[in-house]
Amino acid sequence: MARFYSVIPAGGIGSRLWPLSRASAPKFLHDLTGSGQTLLQDTWDRLEPLSGSDRIVVVTGVAHKTAVVEQCADLSKSNLFLEPSPKDSTAAIALAAAILMKREPDVIIGSFAADHVITDNKEFSDSVKEAVAVAATGKIVTIGIEPTEPSVGFGYIKAGEKMDLDFAKHARHVDKFVEKPDIERARKYVNSGKYLWNAGMFIAPAALLLQVLSETEPELHGKITELAAAWGTAAEHQAFEIIWPSLKKIAIDYSVAEPAAAQGLVAVVPAKFGWHDVGDFAAIAELQSGGKRNHLAVLGEVQVLADKSNGILISETGRLVALIGLEDVIVVDTADALLVTTKAHAQRVKNLVDSLKSTGHSDVL
Amino acid sequence: MARFYSVIPAGGIGSRLWPLSRASAPKFLHDLTGSGQTLLQDTWDRLEPLSGSDRIVVVTGVAHKTAVVEQCADLSKSNLFLEPSPKDSTAAIALAAAILMKREPDVIIGSFAADHVITDNKEFSDSVKEAVAVAATGKIVTIGIEPTEPSVGFGYIKAGEKMDLDFAKHARHVDKFVEKPDIERARKYVNSGKYLWNAGMFIAPAALLLQVLSETEPELHGKITELAAAWGTAAEHQAFEIIWPSLKKIAIDYSVAEPAAAQGLVAVVPAKFGWHDVGDFAAIAELQSGGKRNHLAVLGEVQVLADKSNGILISETGRLVALIGLEDVIVVDTADALLVTTKAHAQRVKNLVDSLKSTGHSDVL
Repeated sequence: MARFYSVIPAGGIGSRLWPLSRASAPKFLHDLTGSGQTLLQDTWDRLEPLSGSDRIVVVTGVAHKTAVVEQCADLSKSNLFLEPSPKDSTAAIALAAAILMKREPDVIIGSFAADHVITDNKEFSDSVKEAVAVAATGKIVTIGIEPTEPSVGFGYIKAGEKMDLDFAKHARHVDKFVEKPDIERARKYVNSGKYLWNAGMFIAPAALLLQVLSETEPELHGKITELAAAWGTAAEHQAFEIIWPSLKKIAIDYSVAEPAAAQGLVAVVPAKFGWHDVGDFAAIAELQSGGKRNHLAVLGEVQVLADKSNGILISETGRLVALIGLEDVIVVDTADALLVTTKAHAQRVKNLVDSLKSTGHSDVL
Repeated sequence: MARFYSVIPAGGIGSRLWPLSRASAPKFLHDLTGSGQTLLQDTWDRLEPLSGSDRIVVVTGVAHKTAVVEQCADLSKSNLFLEPSPKDSTAAIALAAAILMKREPDVIIGSFAADHVITDNKEFSDSVKEAVAVAATGKIVTIGIEPTEPSVGFGYIKAGEKMDLDFAKHARHVDKFVEKPDIERARKYVNSGKYLWNAGMFIAPAALLLQVLSETEPELHGKITELAAAWGTAAEHQAFEIIWPSLKKIAIDYSVAEPAAAQGLVAVVPAKFGWHDVGDFAAIAELQSGGKRNHLAVLGEVQVLADKSNGILISETGRLVALIGLEDVIVVDTADALLVTTKAHAQRVKNLVDSLKSTGHSDVL
């Protein structure tokens, strides 16, 4: 674990969580679990025991610098990597890998989204430790979540043979990654027992990750290498101004994970912890109700009068909210926008955000 | 019509219209039709051609003096009767009758609620004129609404024989008034063709109305007489301070209309106009949608993004409101309170207000 560095890419607005989640206050800056702290802080607290607080990097947009610094009091200044504009996950993770490799050539990085919810921190910790041990053998290791339902909202990992390592009892080879399936295919995946949810967690030697990238996306790799070289020097500002805008936007799944899997370079540690990407309000409601039926979850300091209503209420306004006779309702009450819908329509919030964009309502996005 | 005086009792909060309607801003001070003016102003505009603006009296609570004066620009100062506290309809109407009788002993008053919606002002006007003509023969005349459905929300009037008057072709004797029925009874009433909705409109010589009251509620009648005698004199202030708080709260239906009907003193003019008491948000939604299905009615200056939603949205905050996949929804968005319910539960808003009262939330009532 001495080689391990945690990397938290803190990006992504979370359109399906509008109007709570905004460009100015994306999902990771919100408390969606009622834990009393934000998802970013929860992520920090999970990783701190694994890498130590001086070995956690946060990669985020310049717009979120203040909020991130405020929320992560122990984040060292040299471990905050600011992106001038969003360029998807490859740029964020590869930049972190390249900068950290300058510091420690044999560094193993683990990349964990800032806006997922994980229960059982002990189990998470055990899985990461096992993944780091496997990564040290020269693998890109992902943590795969045992599916609890045939979700069409996640990509899947097809696990192969056990690796049969003394220090990694659960690790398996990865046959391949597969895209978000339709429901029929998702059922097949789950029934087969061979597929795991892809939670986007990657643990790998930085050198290996960058080597794969140099093969699959040589131009992007070259630019990232230039940026990392300029990092912390007098040339940094100019390099970012010139190079950053030209970076290709591509998810790390396509640039590294899938090609590496095809080369037999990827392993998976099946997770034994509860995980959710809380992608929409229905997911938050599920999470909050903990399986209780007819439960109204409430997030925010709000006076609620609920009469035969269940679902979720999120309020940031402090207004009195009265709900009568509503089934599976979603009410999100913010200072300048109000959303009312139902769990069944939670995914359609994204379309609504798209239509706000196209009709020039960027003031509320 | 020269004997005619319009009286508008402007009282009643309209609990089922919370949080729009409040003690400080009751139903009659709102635009619930999208006409661009309040229900009180609509009422004024209907009556002004009948009695002239100098013969319209408004009886309202002291708390609403400013709003009423503002909204009724032509209301003469001497025609604004202020109630120190709400004492139900008998006190309001009898006080107006007694004061107006002091001015003109043979005055005929017509009492019309400030918060009902009437379509077809011409038809309304014709009905009132006929009612005044019948009242002049020594009757208390009500205007009965032809029921369009077996409503359980209104009281009914059982009409008797035609009066056979040359100048009042539609007027009938009234057999009796009946309370709000259950649905089975309501269906029988409607199918019989003999029952009309009681819309609470009474047209009568002030002297006759007060004479009936003197028989049924002699104490209340005595106190009202005292108050009217003091009205406009140096004794007014003290009389209201001492006597008003002790007035019996009783609806004019019980104190005058029903006993008078039993004496054969009541007539009814069946109405040929559209009428609604817009008692709850479902009624407003119906009114606004004008029978169109899948219609989302919107009241207030609000930006709405509605995706497969119907019902009613009333907003006073100017916030963006997004509704997705909601059937028959009711959303009422005010500065300090938000209500979300459905048409089917519109009546339960009253219970909610009751529970707000009992839990000390008078700040939002």
